[in-house]
Amino acid sequence: MRAVIMHAPGDVRVEQIPDASIVEPTDAVIRPAAVCVCGSDLWPYRGIEPLHGPTAMGHEYVGVVEQVGDAVREIEVGDFVVGSFVASDNTCDICRAGYQSRCVHQVMMGSVGTQSELVRVPHADGTLVRTPGMPEPDLIPSLLAASDVLGTGWFAAVAAEAGPGKTVAVVGDGAVGLLGVLAARELGAERIIAMSRHADRQALARELGATDIVEERGAAGVERIKELTDGLGAHSTIEAVGTQEAMEQAIGATRPGGHVGFVGVSHDVQLDGLGLFFSSVHLHGGPAPVRRFLPDLIDRIWRREIDPGKVFDLTVPIERAAEAYAAMDERRAVKAMLTL
Amino acid sequence: MRAVIMHAPGDVRVEQIPDASIVEPTDAVIRPAAVCVCGSDLWPYRGIEPLHGPTAMGHEYVGVVEQVGDAVREIEVGDFVVGSFVASDNTCDICRAGYQSRCVHQVMMGSVGTQSELVRVPHADGTLVRTPGMPEPDLIPSLLAASDVLGTGWFAAVAAEAGPGKTVAVVGDGAVGLLGVLAARELGAERIIAMSRHADRQALARELGATDIVEERGAAGVERIKELTDGLGAHSTIEAVGTQEAMEQAIGATRPGGHVGFVGVSHDVQLDGLGLFFSSVHLHGGPAPVRRFLPDLIDRIWRREIDPGKVFDLTVPIERAAEAYAAMDERRAVKAMLTL
Repeated sequence: MRAVIMHAPGDVRVEQIPDASIVEPTDAVIRPAAVCVCGSDLWPYRGIEPLHGPTAMGHEYVGVVEQVGDAVREIEVGDFVVGSFVASDNTCDICRAGYQSRCVHQVMMGSVGTQSELVRVPHADGTLVRTPGMPEPDLIPSLLAASDVLGTGWFAAVAAEAGPGKTVAVVGDGAVGLLGVLAARELGAERIIAMSRHADRQALARELGATDIVEERGAAGVERIKELTDGLGAHSTIEAVGTQEAMEQAIGATRPGGHVGFVGVSHDVQLDGLGLFFSSVHLHGGPAPVRRFLPDLIDRIWRREIDPGKVFDLTVPIERAAEAYAAMDERRAVKAMLTL
Repeated sequence: MRAVIMHAPGDVRVEQIPDASIVEPTDAVIRPAAVCVCGSDLWPYRGIEPLHGPTAMGHEYVGVVEQVGDAVREIEVGDFVVGSFVASDNTCDICRAGYQSRCVHQVMMGSVGTQSELVRVPHADGTLVRTPGMPEPDLIPSLLAASDVLGTGWFAAVAAEAGPGKTVAVVGDGAVGLLGVLAARELGAERIIAMSRHADRQALARELGATDIVEERGAAGVERIKELTDGLGAHSTIEAVGTQEAMEQAIGATRPGGHVGFVGVSHDVQLDGLGLFFSSVHLHGGPAPVRRFLPDLIDRIWRREIDPGKVFDLTVPIERAAEAYAAMDERRAVKAMLTL
């Protein structure tokens, strides 16, 4: 099968590798309807995360089940399914508490690779959620977004306790931040402040529900959020970047007693204990338990209430994966879809 | 009036200073029934926090109102009152959200000093809570504990979401940690693991509600908590120390999706962003909004349901304040009360 392989920072190729197949009896193999490139795929692309040899890339996927292992009970060949970027049994105590991304038997799909013609999905019964039927083609991008960026933005909004009467600030204008805006709107937030200095992303943020745009960053960005909130700060802040500046901005922009939902994978971030202590915020985040939200998200997409697929602004055949990575790296694209 | 003055690390004296008096029309002056030394008074005593010249010490207080300013409406001369270590107006948006310790008009009582014969309390109407009448003398220690250590331990337990069905770990066996044990018990926790290696404090922890004791610290302490919780970690962890080791221990001992309530004033603590990200815990803490809990805590004490005054294991006249500081510094006393 064809698969996207990263050989070194900036070196992405499409190569033939052996077909994905059942390894554990709880596995399924699916044929993706489309795959995509994630902001987190850019960390190794930029040399910020180490690569240990040629690596099959990708962790997002939707598609049709081709094979199931002997122990799979719920999922059947021919089902159209959406899964999270973390495979989980959905039965352990951690899963049942809603933290399937930290399942005691978790498998990171990034360690399997999904940017390929076939994908092996561990813990198929726990991981995969069936759609009500075969989706119309125009729903594919939105369902694919549910696999990670929508689910992650949604978790960030839930972790930030976005809701009625709340002012929500969103740090980060990538796909996750933009879908955090959408999630905050769906959860009923009164005011949603998107922090962005790119006109096209500002426009998309407004389309997805942002009521205000703040272009300033760092301390100036924090001051601007405070000006907009009677000097107090936002009730809820979504952090969707993963840098020191973004975390400090998110914590600084939040009022005492408020909530920060952080989902940017923290790179070289050190939080000062005393600063956090006197911020009096709630801090919660980490790898999003997308599986918790998938049934609800699929339902909203199926009923065409939300259109998270809007974050895909570049679509290329998988052979041109290198172009997709470069476009996202250079911020010419918010998020790129690869067709098969 | 006599007051405890710290001149330098380790140098605590009782001196005559001018009587406390009304400065702002919203002030009250109270005559404390007793005062006490806090674990946080030990930071400057040990030279870890800087002193800027001779400093009037203390921030905990209960007693009888002697004078009120012209703008005070609710509190009257002769009332017996309890207040928090942060004076607050109790009317701003932050106060009304339950974060009176971060009131937009907050005054830290530590900047006023309370280890003295009279105490000026700013924002008297917002800060002070009346008891149902003049307390029996044996209730004074418990009411005094409510002013900070009980309220702080209670907040930590609430921030950690201690409650029915939960396993709660408590890092720190000082007065706040011990009263965190009591709070977790009162909030209905199923299992309470106190981390302590001192026999007398272990005994007190058990008396206050601990079901298990863990003597190990650091990584070994984390491993022991995991052994006691099916490898998952505690649902709720109270951090009541404020050091790097204690914070790492608290986060490490908590299961994904669990809650850490941290109330130890963080000193030289740096939290690794990636570690926090993959811990998937909720982190909340800071200066406890004791005012939020005072009516409930006074009620529980008044009905003799709880006896937090047990943490006072040394009582000396205020003239001997230096002895009280030394005893706490050397961990010969959990908490010292000063009589007037």
